[in-house]
Amino acid sequence: MTLANKHLLGLEGMSGTDIQAILDTATSFREVLERPIKKVPTLQGKTIVNLFFESSTRTRISFELAERRLSADVVNFSADSSSVKKGETLKDTARNIEAMKIDMVVMRHSAPGSVQFLSRVINSVVINAGDGAHEHPTQALLDMYTIREKFGRLAGLKVCIVGDISHSRVALSNIYGLKTMGAEIAVCGPATLIPRNIDKLGVTVFNKIDDAIRWADILNVLRIQLERQDRIFFPSLQEYRKYFAVTKDRIARAGKDITIMHPGPINRDVELSADVADSEKSLILQQVLNGVAVRMAVLYLLGTRS
Amino acid sequence: MTLANKHLLGLEGMSGTDIQAILDTATSFREVLERPIKKVPTLQGKTIVNLFFESSTRTRISFELAERRLSADVVNFSADSSSVKKGETLKDTARNIEAMKIDMVVMRHSAPGSVQFLSRVINSVVINAGDGAHEHPTQALLDMYTIREKFGRLAGLKVCIVGDISHSRVALSNIYGLKTMGAEIAVCGPATLIPRNIDKLGVTVFNKIDDAIRWADILNVLRIQLERQDRIFFPSLQEYRKYFAVTKDRIARAGKDITIMHPGPINRDVELSADVADSEKSLILQQVLNGVAVRMAVLYLLGTRS
Amino acid sequence: MTLANKHLLGLEGMSGTDIQAILDTATSFREVLERPIKKVPTLQGKTIVNLFFESSTRTRISFELAERRLSADVVNFSADSSSVKKGETLKDTARNIEAMKIDMVVMRHSAPGSVQFLSRVINSVVINAGDGAHEHPTQALLDMYTIREKFGRLAGLKVCIVGDISHSRVALSNIYGLKTMGAEIAVCGPATLIPRNIDKLGVTVFNKIDDAIRWADILNVLRIQLERQDRIFFPSLQEYRKYFAVTKDRIARAGKDITIMHPGPINRDVELSADVADSEKSLILQQVLNGVAVRMAVLYLLGTRS
Repeated sequence: MTLANKHLLGLEGMSGTDIQAILDTATSFREVLERPIKKVPTLQGKTIVNLFFESSTRTRISFELAERRLSADVVNFSADSSSVKKGETLKDTARNIEAMKIDMVVMRHSAPGSVQFLSRVINSVVINAGDGAHEHPTQALLDMYTIREKFGRLAGLKVCIVGDISHSRVALSNIYGLKTMGAEIAVCGPATLIPRNIDKLGVTVFNKIDDAIRWADILNVLRIQLERQDRIFFPSLQEYRKYFAVTKDRIARAGKDITIMHPGPINRDVELSADVADSEKSLILQQVLNGVAVRMAVLYLLGTRS
Repeated sequence: MTLANKHLLGLEGMSGTDIQAILDTATSFREVLERPIKKVPTLQGKTIVNLFFESSTRTRISFELAERRLSADVVNFSADSSSVKKGETLKDTARNIEAMKIDMVVMRHSAPGSVQFLSRVINSVVINAGDGAHEHPTQALLDMYTIREKFGRLAGLKVCIVGDISHSRVALSNIYGLKTMGAEIAVCGPATLIPRNIDKLGVTVFNKIDDAIRWADILNVLRIQLERQDRIFFPSLQEYRKYFAVTKDRIARAGKDITIMHPGPINRDVELSADVADSEKSLILQQVLNGVAVRMAVLYLLGTRS
Repeated sequence: MTLANKHLLGLEGMSGTDIQAILDTATSFREVLERPIKKVPTLQGKTIVNLFFESSTRTRISFELAERRLSADVVNFSADSSSVKKGETLKDTARNIEAMKIDMVVMRHSAPGSVQFLSRVINSVVINAGDGAHEHPTQALLDMYTIREKFGRLAGLKVCIVGDISHSRVALSNIYGLKTMGAEIAVCGPATLIPRNIDKLGVTVFNKIDDAIRWADILNVLRIQLERQDRIFFPSLQEYRKYFAVTKDRIARAGKDITIMHPGPINRDVELSADVADSEKSLILQQVLNGVAVRMAVLYLLGTRS
């Protein structure tokens, strides 16, 4: 099975066939993760550099575990200990690392489009682990995998993404991917945090969380990322919570079954109440587990592509 | 050989049989460390996460070496690059890491009881690499291993721990472990740095270092940890040195043989004079070496426990 | 093939035979780097600690890749997370790490002579990855390898090192190594950045970059390291650029072929113009690639020395 593109930069424009190939491959690796020895020799002798210009716990560890379980050699690079401080350009850093005969680069960077740029200046395989507010394709792939695992399909399901849509790479990648796979998408959040022309992407907008809950099969609740925004787009956390928090009461009032997802880390009792996060409606820990399998699938498909 | 508990949280309540099992197993690994190839395939395919919420050189490197020499896959996580900054709870961080199918977690954390808490919320094996001023069981185990290696036994030996007993996890773990193994324990330090009811643990208290030296077979001299205390418990380093430093002169005056240990890093010529630290009385570097073997033993016994 | 010294501390005093042995061995590893599986089992079961007391991207990654491709076990240690903060001496840090049965230590440290010191207090093999403004032998070896690869020889070639010679370990190691191999050496830079008695090393001094370009077969352009100097030795970057920058125009004016090298990271359009750095005259990325092969050679020769 070969993907159309040698890199994974985003889900915009990725075909349904390719998405399906990744999800199907992830199913095999999901089984590997249930074995006592969770390791396969697939990428033995390949070198992967994790180039993280933004700090990250779960994404970095998830990728690193996926890489090690495929038996790749892993070199970690974080911006803190880097030449970046010395004013080197991304292009020079990347070219230098590539000159050392790296097979794949997994990059997280605060600048939207930085991975696209990287893929143009180096020959190694580039995988996007989040580029600013642009895309975070492996997150969306693991979200889709988790939905498909529960519902057996993606087509026809109603998924509403809740929160700060404007600054979310998770939202954008999910919209591209789920659309391609035939799901219906809505977003819900303060008007200031919804991109103006999002309806052009075929996305419904809810201004009230109760309407979103009534409509959706699945809520993908985003983290309120106070640390990422330079400006304040809503008056206070209290007010956000009052109008948009997903709580047990609100779900009960809707009188219907609903599935809860969250890319983590959760602000407990801010965007999502702790009891809902820990309830049987929640697929949050399932997402984390599937993340390793999906990343193994992506690394495998791109790393063995001839 | 199977330990009673699936975790290693502390030495409080651990049976003599279990302590002996760890020390005996460490003897085999001690031999492995003398080989040209210091590696065994025991934990191949197992994943261990080193979760260090406090910085550490020797403990982290010692664990990492032990893990690699057992052929485990190792993922390092330090608080600096973590979600902790983003306000995630320890419970969420731990659950998320565990969801990725980790076999063992080695944790250091500033909060006493944090490892106990961790062991209740996750299913992986938890090993305490130091939880605040509570316990540091692998340090005490390596201290006991080192004593047994020199004296051939633990029972009946007189061990005096010198320094800031109140804030020391090394002291507490040593007291629990050595008591269980039949050694006699004393502590010595400024009255403000000795817990009030330590005699209830069956521990003798010396207020004068010269009395301690006369009594003891072994002095385990603790590091004065200026960076851990919020308050000042003694007037000055000069004064501490004057009354409690272990020096060549003081040992000579006691006119008897004595063995010196220190968990490191040493403040040379503060709690311990450099000439004593480097003398043939000192087992300090032996402790460091044995630390790797003892940690291999703990990882092996817990990692292969069915 | 066995090198005379068990450590690699510097190129001062290293024989031509030993330099040649390293370069010849690197040729074999250079071939390994062109294979799909860039890995050999040579150092399996050996433990290497990368002890970096100064941050570094390319040198650390280059060494780490070399180590992993020789199948060694690698433990990284950076000053940030270290006991160094707690005031431990280098000697104690080193002895403690060695007590854990390390085979080799790769160290970068800001103090000139620190690796020499290290090699006297521990028994493990010590490799200098840069000690202050003293030596950076693997950089000079990779520079020599890269020159030899292009020109087929070192003897008789004219190499001019440009920039801040006084504070450069790259310059000093290159001077020692190239002299031994029979090359002619010059330096060029502001008078304040040239050591007073450098002519005693048999080095020609150029005060004008145009003279240097006319003379040299190869220019090795150093990075202007603003972050390393406590004092200001030249009025401004603008002025440095005006008098010493290596640019397309200046090379064209000399009307001759010239080869450009740079240890990186480049300050584009400061010491070296971007168009020259990216031109076919430049061996910069070749240097980076050869760096991995040369470090594999050094690790191999010292790590298997009986």
